[in-house]
Amino acid sequence: MWLHREITLSARPRGFHLITDELLEQLPEITSIDAGVAYFFIKHTSASLCVNENADPTVRSDMEAHLNKIVPENAPYYRHTLEGPDDMPAHIKATLVGSSITLPVHRGQLCLGVWQGIYLGEHRDRGSSRRIVVTLQGE
Amino acid sequence: MWLHREITLSARPRGFHLITDELLEQLPEITSIDAGVAYFFIKHTSASLCVNENADPTVRSDMEAHLNKIVPENAPYYRHTLEGPDDMPAHIKATLVGSSITLPVHRGQLCLGVWQGIYLGEHRDRGSSRRIVVTLQGE
Amino acid sequence: MWLHREITLSARPRGFHLITDELLEQLPEITSIDAGVAYFFIKHTSASLCVNENADPTVRSDMEAHLNKIVPENAPYYRHTLEGPDDMPAHIKATLVGSSITLPVHRGQLCLGVWQGIYLGEHRDRGSSRRIVVTLQGE
Repeated sequence: MWLHREITLSARPRGFHLITDELLEQLPEITSIDAGVAYFFIKHTSASLCVNENADPTVRSDMEAHLNKIVPENAPYYRHTLEGPDDMPAHIKATLVGSSITLPVHRGQLCLGVWQGIYLGEHRDRGSSRRIVVTLQGE
Repeated sequence: MWLHREITLSARPRGFHLITDELLEQLPEITSIDAGVAYFFIKHTSASLCVNENADPTVRSDMEAHLNKIVPENAPYYRHTLEGPDDMPAHIKATLVGSSITLPVHRGQLCLGVWQGIYLGEHRDRGSSRRIVVTLQGE
Repeated sequence: MWLHREITLSARPRGFHLITDELLEQLPEITSIDAGVAYFFIKHTSASLCVNENADPTVRSDMEAHLNKIVPENAPYYRHTLEGPDDMPAHIKATLVGSSITLPVHRGQLCLGVWQGIYLGEHRDRGSSRRIVVTLQGE
């Protein structure tokens, strides 16, 4: 069984956001998979996907704070600056965090650990809605 | 053919560790796959998986040393600090390194390069045993 | 349908390079997949794969410039130094950027966003040709 679906996430402010529930609501077919895999791919180069802690919101804000430290705005050597100071750092963060995640599916559920959730990293100051391609495969 | 298996790795000290052999010992079914894929996903948010150099142990210790430089403890803006100074850096490292790897399988073997192995990144000072979900798929 | 293919990319200078077209030329079978997934895995530990912006070449040069800042050469604590100052940084960059990408395939095409392309990160000063294992799967 193959399922291909494009999901549109509403626009969010810059930072990391827990999106597990919003994704699962749009993927009821997962419950019918006994063994399989779910692929999530974000069709943008200034936002990212990853898996991290799902409970304490300060993990998300500390993640944003530290990524801003690792990838600061206005580095003197940036040349891709036309769209503003948040543009090039957004591309770099997208590469460091990643554009896709692959999660095992077992007995009708994503096999996330108890403390794990799916994060959207929104790296632009004014990001628009974001499109995620989900591919479900299994039996 | 689908195989879903949860593998428990024994607790390891903080740092990067070569775990290829320990994983393969628990996946004898790989030898029967002619063309396929192996997915490895770690069910924790303060440990990580990646592929890197399998020969010289100083690659692993240099990796740990430099990640501690990129993601230091006790950054003044960290607010997720209740579990100790190694907690928030561990979450950030897990996101930078990644929670999963996907490897091709061909003629009964993982298609790793000659110098490649699978690393566990243990990012806590006293990490417990770590659970990895492996999904094998192929024909 | 499973396809396993090893693609050899010609040697490129240190930096990030757009390789989407070079890969697609060697994967004509994608056009016959209605729903599926393409896995790309690089069999080297000092080069990397990621998805990022496909239009402005300064994104690639800024990415290289900033990764050199995050992962500098000649850090005093590096011990894996036998092969030169670009060796250990190359391993660290490969882990931060990643060794593989997974892309959805739909109606005969890779589902990349309009502004997305596949990057090769060449992290050695004199990298040789690079081998990428591609696994195509779908129906």
